[in-house]
Parts: sequence; structure tokens; C-alpha cells
Amino acid sequence: MRQAGRYLPEYRKVRSQAGSFLNLCYSPDLATEVTLQPIRRFGFDASILFSDILVIPDALGQKVEFRENIGPVLSPRIRSADDLDRLRTDEAADRLEPVYQTVRNLAAALPSNVTLIGFAGAPWTVATYMVGGEGSRDQAETRLWAYAEPQAFERLINLLVETTAAYLIRQVEAGAEVLQLFDTWAGSLPEREFERWCIAPIAEIVKRVRARYPAVPIIGFPRGAGQRYAEFAQRTGVNAVSIDVTVPLHFAKTEIQPGCTVQGNLDPLLLVSGGKAMTGEVDRILHSLGEGPFIFNLGHGIVPQTPIDHVAALVEQVKSYRG
Amino acid sequence: MRQAGRYLPEYRKVRSQAGSFLNLCYSPDLATEVTLQPIRRFGFDASILFSDILVIPDALGQKVEFRENIGPVLSPRIRSADDLDRLRTDEAADRLEPVYQTVRNLAAALPSNVTLIGFAGAPWTVATYMVGGEGSRDQAETRLWAYAEPQAFERLINLLVETTAAYLIRQVEAGAEVLQLFDTWAGSLPEREFERWCIAPIAEIVKRVRARYPAVPIIGFPRGAGQRYAEFAQRTGVNAVSIDVTVPLHFAKTEIQPGCTVQGNLDPLLLVSGGKAMTGEVDRILHSLGEGPFIFNLGHGIVPQTPIDHVAALVEQVKSYRG
Repeated sequence: MRQAGRYLPEYRKVRSQAGSFLNLCYSPDLATEVTLQPIRRFGFDASILFSDILVIPDALGQKVEFRENIGPVLSPRIRSADDLDRLRTDEAADRLEPVYQTVRNLAAALPSNVTLIGFAGAPWTVATYMVGGEGSRDQAETRLWAYAEPQAFERLINLLVETTAAYLIRQVEAGAEVLQLFDTWAGSLPEREFERWCIAPIAEIVKRVRARYPAVPIIGFPRGAGQRYAEFAQRTGVNAVSIDVTVPLHFAKTEIQPGCTVQGNLDPLLLVSGGKAMTGEVDRILHSLGEGPFIFNLGHGIVPQTPIDHVAALVEQVKSYRG
Repeated sequence: MRQAGRYLPEYRKVRSQAGSFLNLCYSPDLATEVTLQPIRRFGFDASILFSDILVIPDALGQKVEFRENIGPVLSPRIRSADDLDRLRTDEAADRLEPVYQTVRNLAAALPSNVTLIGFAGAPWTVATYMVGGEGSRDQAETRLWAYAEPQAFERLINLLVETTAAYLIRQVEAGAEVLQLFDTWAGSLPEREFERWCIAPIAEIVKRVRARYPAVPIIGFPRGAGQRYAEFAQRTGVNAVSIDVTVPLHFAKTEIQPGCTVQGNLDPLLLVSGGKAMTGEVDRILHSLGEGPFIFNLGHGIVPQTPIDHVAALVEQVKSYRG
């Protein structure tokens, strides 16, 4: 919820001047400006870099477009070992220099009490776009290709592990204080595939980043992981787990919080509807999880139709908790 | 996986002659024929009525169309108490007489060792189509309306409970031996909404059916419920729980199976890819859950591109387990 976005008029103004969406991500001055907008307006305690998880496929040489009312479209789709051979894998993370410049700008511009969060998409989720070519309801094409050609798919995942780890290390070097890995489509993976394509790659990224920066906190978000959140928290080595809107608070408290910070999980649609339904749920979350290591957040991204005064009311309510 | 469908050429032939999809559902001779097709071909131990969860909105007077490559479209969308007033709620279940005729045909036609399963959509899932007007990734419009007007939404859910219970009772009277309730979109509900819109309405339907037919087994399928499967199994009163592809087998064995039959959960996409990946997973499922009360099944519907010989191989493998 600390992110920039279409719910803010000042964002829409910059967005309309930026040309393509990727151009906004790659223009350090504009990306810095939109990252700072919600901080100025609401005084959040942390700020998350404005970027997109699909800068990685772009850096790898896949064509990435963001089409109005459709979403991201990637071409050509990755469907064979030959397709993988055509990616520009050498020093892919170096091609994301504009993102690091944004991070440097933000590190300089943010007040010292506002934490700067860098991020990347987790390998499985990024792979679903590279293989499927677009968003989908159940990631069926990617799951099918992974079943049919597990070795080729593993090459893709390994390539993403390597590029993503390098990308996150560069973000820390540029000034990111915390990192978050978004595995938005983890929830569609069956048991063994969740192990292989969600837990294992994230554990490897965490290991690589830690080898360089042992102290940087890393947040994982395996959205929709259900009962597997507990295993994810225990086995990836992340410091914090972001929980989606469906995770029962008692489960988070007893199965995740003992070993791991929990972040979450107000339904973004409750922030749209506001009122007592929202304040009641915020209260329930704070009372259930507020004693343990906890970061209040939404359970998923803020939606464009969110009324700005609901965000302000929410920040007020959270800040005044035990205040 | 015992269902009819586009993966069978004999189904596609009947489908092409039937006119609209709803016409196929409402033509007892054709619906009987397509229900029997997979039984003839594969010798399944059970048969599930050919119908659709959206016959209920149709019976309630909402216009329901199935559009090629789009899916169901319902109009006008339900968005207010006034919209609810316009539904034809009196004796809605009576308008589904052609479905009961199909059940009677099947009860007469099926061999005595093939169990006949009747079914309906659960209230939450049916409501998401009635409010949203179509399928969606996260049921946002329905969740928003339920937040904004919980009393009106509850009226809709109660109406669906009443109609669905009456519909299922009529299926039992016509010869259905087991009932299944599909809550395909249960997984998008936050904790308290899962209680209110998934568990409570299903518990009420189970109670009403049991008041008339105490012995009829009822299977619930709260797809995507994650860690909440255990609570669903304990609190709805169902006899069996169908688990989706993401549920870890150890969780199913320790948290569901002690009190409830488990049904599931092969990934339908593994049935598409076949081979050792499929047989290995089938083996793992059978060895994990086969000792307890268990029904082997897919974790979700069979997909159109499924090769028929993979289905035959799967049936062979499952039947020969401990054989």
C-alpha cells in the first residue's frame, strides 16, 4: 500500500507524460517522483521503489509491452530450449542501470526515518509471463510446459535466479534497505511444484544476496500459498512473509510469526469500501498480530478506484494503535 | 474427471447438434447421453450428472448465455436490492424439471455398481456470476458489493441457499445417490467472508438436505481454501471434501481425512502431459491417501486438450492399485 499508483492524481499526471509504462520505470527522475508521491501525501514509514517485475524479461531481451486494458504482453513466448538460447543472459542485470539510479535518487531524497524497499518478481511468477506471454487465470501454459519439459523450464528458472539475485544485490548497493520478492502466482502450484519452482528458487536468491549482504532484511510474498506459508517461512530463509487476504490471522500468529515477521493483510477492496467494515477489520488485524513482529499492510496491491481519504484514515488508525 | 466434456469426440458431436449449451443441459435425452459417454468409454465407478452450476440463476430469471471463447455471460447483473426483487424466486427449483428428468433417466440407465452423483454450485460461487455478470480472476466486483451492501448480498446468498437446497433434494428424489457442492471461487474470500459466504451457506444447505435425506453423502469442494479446508471439513457437515491441486497430501491426511473422506487431487494438466510425471504423482497420491477414506479424482475439471489414452491409462493405474 506504500506504492505509487493510479489512485493518485499526481501519479496519473506523471504517467500521462511518460510515454510507455516501461519508459516510466526507466526514467530515474520520473520514477523517483512517483515513488515519493505517496510518502509526501501520507507520511508512510516506508517507501517501495517504483518499478515492475517485468523489467527482468526486458533486460533478458524479451519484448515487453504494457497494453491499456489488457496488461503486459511479452513476445516471443519462451517455449523451448532454443527460445532460451536467444535470450541475452550475459550481464542482464547491468542493463537495469536506470533502476539503480532511481534507487540512488531515493536513498538521497527520503527522510532517514523512511525505509527504502527494493523488490523483484520471484522466478516462478516472472516465468509465467515469459512462457505464457501475458497474465492468465491459472498459469496453465507455464505449468504445462514445466511438466512437459522440466529440464528446459529449470534452465529458465535458474537463469531468473541468477539475474534476480544480481539485480537485488545491485539495488542494495544503490541504497535499498529492505528487499521484497513477489511470487504473485505461487498459489497455482501443486505441492511438489511449489517446492521446486517457488521455495527452492527463492531460497537460492536469499542465499546469494546474503552471501554479499548478510544483514539485509528480505520479505517473501508467496501469494495464495495457503497452508504452505508456514513451510515457505521456514525454508526460504526470508526474514518476513507477506500474507495475502485469505490467510487466517490465527494461522499467521501461530504458524508464521514465531519464526518470522508477518506483513499484511487488509483486503484492498475493504480500503475501497471504507467505513466500519474497514476499521473493524484493521482493528482485528492489529489486535491479532500487533504483539509479534509485524508490518501492517494490504494483502495485495492497492486498486485504482481507492478513495484517497480512505488511505489517510487507515494510516491514522494504524499510527494511533497503542499510540 | 468422471464428467463429460470437450476432450471426447462423441461429446463434441452431441454438443454441435444441441444448439445452445443451456439447451444441452435442459434436453434430458442429450444430457443423459453425454453423461453416459465417459462411463461407456472408461468404466468409471461413478457418474456425475451433466449440467451446469448456472442453471440456478437461469431458473431465478436472470438471462444466462454461454459465449464461445468467452464463457458465461449473465444479465442484468445483480447490484441492488431492487435487482433482487426482480428475480423469480417462488418455486425456482420447480423450473429445473428437465434436470430431474435427466437424473431419472440416468438412475434407470446406469449399472447398479456405478454411483450417480448430482451437484450444484455453492451460493458464493453462483453469486459471483450473478453479481459480476461473468467469470473473473478475483471476483472483485462481488466482494466489493458484499462489503458495500452486506445485507442485500446476504439476501442473495439466502435465496441461493433456499433454491439450491430445494434443487438438490429434487435431485435425490429423482435418483441421485451422492451430492457435490462446487465452491469454485471460495479461494478468493478473506477469513471472515469465508466463514460467512462459504462455510455458513454450505452448512445450511447440508442441514436442509439432511432434514429430508439423512443418509445421502454430500461432497464439498471449496477450491483454493488452503489452510481453511480443515475448518470447512469440520464445520459444514459434509461427508467428503474434494481437494484442489495445491493441497499438500500430508495436510489432507492429517487435517481432513481423520474426520472426512478426501477426494482428489491430480493436476488436470498432468493428465494432459501424461508419462512418468503423471504416473509418479498418481502413485504418490494413492500411497499417501489410499489407506484412509479416499476417492481418487482430479484436483479440478478435465481440460479439452486431454488425450483420451492418458485417461484410460490413469483409470488402469488407479484400478490396479492394491489389485
